[in-house]
Parts: sequence; structure tokens; C-alpha cells
Amino acid sequence: MSFQLTILGSGAALPTAFRKPTSQYINCNERHILIDCGEGTQSQIRIAGIKLQKITHILISHLHGDHYFGLVGLLSTMHLLGRDQGVTIYGPEELEHIVRLQLEVGHAKLGFSLEFVSLNGKELRLLFEDKSLEIHTFPLKHKIPTNGFIIKEKPKERSIIGEELRESGVSLMAVPYFRRGEDFISEEGETFYADDFTYAPKPSKSYAFCSDTIYTESIVPYIKGVDVLYHEATFTEKEADRAKATMHSTAKQAATIAQKAGVGRLLLGHLSARFDGVEAHLKEARPVFENVVVVSDFDVVEI
Amino acid sequence: MSFQLTILGSGAALPTAFRKPTSQYINCNERHILIDCGEGTQSQIRIAGIKLQKITHILISHLHGDHYFGLVGLLSTMHLLGRDQGVTIYGPEELEHIVRLQLEVGHAKLGFSLEFVSLNGKELRLLFEDKSLEIHTFPLKHKIPTNGFIIKEKPKERSIIGEELRESGVSLMAVPYFRRGEDFISEEGETFYADDFTYAPKPSKSYAFCSDTIYTESIVPYIKGVDVLYHEATFTEKEADRAKATMHSTAKQAATIAQKAGVGRLLLGHLSARFDGVEAHLKEARPVFENVVVVSDFDVVEI
Repeated sequence: MSFQLTILGSGAALPTAFRKPTSQYINCNERHILIDCGEGTQSQIRIAGIKLQKITHILISHLHGDHYFGLVGLLSTMHLLGRDQGVTIYGPEELEHIVRLQLEVGHAKLGFSLEFVSLNGKELRLLFEDKSLEIHTFPLKHKIPTNGFIIKEKPKERSIIGEELRESGVSLMAVPYFRRGEDFISEEGETFYADDFTYAPKPSKSYAFCSDTIYTESIVPYIKGVDVLYHEATFTEKEADRAKATMHSTAKQAATIAQKAGVGRLLLGHLSARFDGVEAHLKEARPVFENVVVVSDFDVVEI
Repeated sequence: MSFQLTILGSGAALPTAFRKPTSQYINCNERHILIDCGEGTQSQIRIAGIKLQKITHILISHLHGDHYFGLVGLLSTMHLLGRDQGVTIYGPEELEHIVRLQLEVGHAKLGFSLEFVSLNGKELRLLFEDKSLEIHTFPLKHKIPTNGFIIKEKPKERSIIGEELRESGVSLMAVPYFRRGEDFISEEGETFYADDFTYAPKPSKSYAFCSDTIYTESIVPYIKGVDVLYHEATFTEKEADRAKATMHSTAKQAATIAQKAGVGRLLLGHLSARFDGVEAHLKEARPVFENVVVVSDFDVVEI
């Protein structure tokens, strides 16, 4: 069981030698998810040593090019490498037309199915769930409709204490009850308490992704208490006017959101190409929210 | 005066760590031309140290993704860097819609004009000319309509031998005549011969680009006698069947075309990702056409 984030691109609209446009890969208990897919993401995936064909869910926050221009190339490469497993893409409505049009003019018939789920950037919505995780979207506030995403583990089962079980002689039929934290009553009417036979489950973790957004406290309720928050910080306070005009955030604003939402850790990214280092960002974010880092391409973060 | 080709991507549909998808940059006497624009071309341009904003003509051979998926990102970056000079894009008809659609959904209003010239992959046609060069397109034969390109210098003017001019006392009005190789008759009726006052011009060079094509001798008349021919060689003879099925060429076939067209030099590229080295390609091309190389990303070739 693992919940791991790999930063594939930590830059903004203008790619630099060291910061490619936005893309993140998540392995949540062997569910493989890609969030955003800027130009060159397929190369970043290869460099990071990630298995491209394992990805089954692709979430696209919005239709600014630095968040999706690498998508159709990625899908083409999946096809050329012989993929047959379907891919589900969650993103703005026009995305399906853009992708299918480009495949069509190239006479490319993919060997796998593409399912598109249309997002409108306006609502909190459960996009996907299985026994171990849930993916939600929520609205951000940017120049065009933009979706944030939350990936969270479902409550985990308790672990059985094998020794206790063997010594007590309780029926193995009790195991599923105990795992769920329920007590078990035997046929003889004897009660066995889950607490005696199990350890508490590992805590369920959650990750929130805020790609491009102006400072808005409207997102706080959606991301309340997540373990890790990624929030864009295209600018610093020195460019606060520019941040507002372009509907982006400063490092201080991102930290304020993290503080108000009471998250565990804050990751800053989407740095404008004008920044060589990360010190200016950290300097203004830390006093507001201490547990903060600026991510770089190929950083791996345990959620 | 210079005529220089920079290879930005020498790979085929599947990009590898060392061969990005097709793109080439040409500086022909300070005309700056991009041919094809696979995903990641803007990064390759940066790494090569080429001045992005100088490019005014972009030629797209066909609408397979490895030849144009980097175009809209490149245009976005030109815009973000403050460009105001227009760009002319020559390519298949659907390209304009694909590019404009993506700009539109992102609400991107470019600060420069985009002119599209539609190519049908069926005819020999002069696309552009100015005083120093001509750009032509001609049909290749591939799975979808595909355009080859020829860039050639116009005949150059003869160089004046200044000393002869001064000593003879001939009027300076004679200079434009001499440059064009014409004799000059003075007001007194004396004839001055261009050959006496000029050096022969430097030879005019030409470059032909054949992106993706099955072996077809139909292209030979178009590329007859060019100084440098780039011809795809996705495969070697071992995969001749696969080359035919996918409408690509082998190294031997490319060499045969070069030999039949009597070109000066042959550049092979668009190598399938299955090839680690270039020896197999050279081994079968050289016996047919000796002056051949396999190009790599960032190679610079003087035409």
C-alpha cells in the first residue's frame, strides 16, 4: 500500500530548461493517475521511469496549453506501444473534440478505448471510486473554467493480530467482521471484540491539486484537512498585481489557503519562468504556513 | 550569406531519449524557416540556441502527430515572449482549424498574425520567394496527404572586382549591370564586359526535405540535382515489408532515390525507435549512394 506523487512538470506557461509545464503522476495503492499533461509529459514520464501503460485515469484541470498540449502525443505513444487497456480522461468538454479531431486527421485508430468525462469547473463531484480510493473534482477560479482535484484513500481495514486469533480459537468467520472493526458473536453466543484481535488501520491519506487559480477562499471547504495540498504559486507578492490580473496566486496567498484549510503539508509549483530560485517563494510562504516546499521536476512526495 | 540546417528532431513516431520527433530549422541567408514541429520542438529550439522569434515560415509536411504536435505550444510561447511579427504556416488544410481551435478554447489571443497556406500533398508549387530564396512543395506518398519541401537559393549576383573598376574609370552606373552578368555600354558607346569586372557568383544551393514516404520514384524529378537531400529511412531492408505496410522507406531505398536524383549529399533520419545505432542504415545505404550520413538531434549541416 502506497500513495506517492511524482512531479513531472513544475513550471508555468513558459517551459524552462528545468521546469516543464504542469503534470503530476500519482500511484495510489496501484491506481495510476496522471494529473494534467503539458507538452513533453511523455518524455518526463520516461525519464522518471514511470510505466506509461499503467496509467488508466487522466485528469485535465483546464484548457490552457501548458496543462494539456502533451495529451494527444501521450495517447499516440500508448497506442504505438501496443496498449489495449482503456483510458478515462476527465476534463473540460471541448477536450474530447480536440483529441478526437487530431487522431482523426492523422487516421489514427487507437487500439484502446478512450472514455471522456466532461467537467465544467463549477461543482464538487465524485468522479471515480473503487474499494481503495476516491477522486473528486471541485471548482477553481481562473480565466477559463478550471477544475481542482482531490484524491483520497478510503478508510482502510483493520489488521488482524494473527497470534491472538489462533490462541482464542475464535472461528475464522470472525475475520471479515474484525477487519471492518465489528465485534463477532459466535454460534454459542459468545462475543469477541474487534479491538482485541486487530490493530487500528493505517490512516487514510488525501491529496488536493490546485493547478491555476486566483486567491479564493471559496476553495477552502473542499480541501479542508487534506494531508498534502499542491497549490500554484506562479508569482510572489512583488507581482501581486500581475497575479490578480492573470488570475494566478502568489506564494503567500497559497500559504494562506493552506493555513485556512488546515492541511498537513503544502507544495508550491507552477513558478513563472522569471524565477531562477525558490527562496523568494519560501520566504513569504513560511511565516504563514511553515510546512511548505517548492517542488521541482521529478520530486517524489509520499502522501 | 549562409545556408544552414539544424536538425531538431531525428526520430520517428516514438520519441526516444536521444531522438525527438521530426523538426528542422533552416537559416537561409537570414530567412528563418522551421520544417515540421513534433512535440517538444520548442525545447529543442532552446537547447540548440536558436532564436525562436526569428522564425517567420513554418512548413508542416503532414498531420501525423510526430510532425506537428509541438506547433501550438511553439506559437503560444512565441506569444508569451511578446512576439508581434506575423508567422506564415504552410500545411494541410485541417491544420488551421486544429491550431485555431486550441487557441480559442484557451482564450488565447495571439499578439501576432497567423497566416495559413493550405497544402494538398498533390502538386509541385512555389510557396514563397523573395530576392534570395524560393520555397517549393511537392507531393510525397504516405498514408495521408504529405508534402515534401525544397528550399533553394536564387541565382546570386556576381561580385565586383573593385580594383578593376577603379582602374578602368568605368561609370558606377555599370555596377548593377555587371552584378547581373550583363555588359555595359557607356554614353560614349564603349562596351565594358561584365566578365572583366566581376567574379563568378557563388553557386546557389538547394535542399530537399522528404519527411515520411514510401519508396517512390515519382519524387525523383522534383528533387533532381539538389545539393542536399533529407530522406526518411525509418527502417532497414530487414523490415522492408514493414516499411511498405506503413508507407515508410528503408535506408537502401532512400539511397536509391538519392542516386537516381543525382543529389550531392544524402541525410537519413526518422529512424524507428527500435534502432540503437546507425550502422545498419549506413551499411546498406553506402553501396548505393556513398555520400550519406544519418543525422542526429542538434546536428548542424552546411548546405
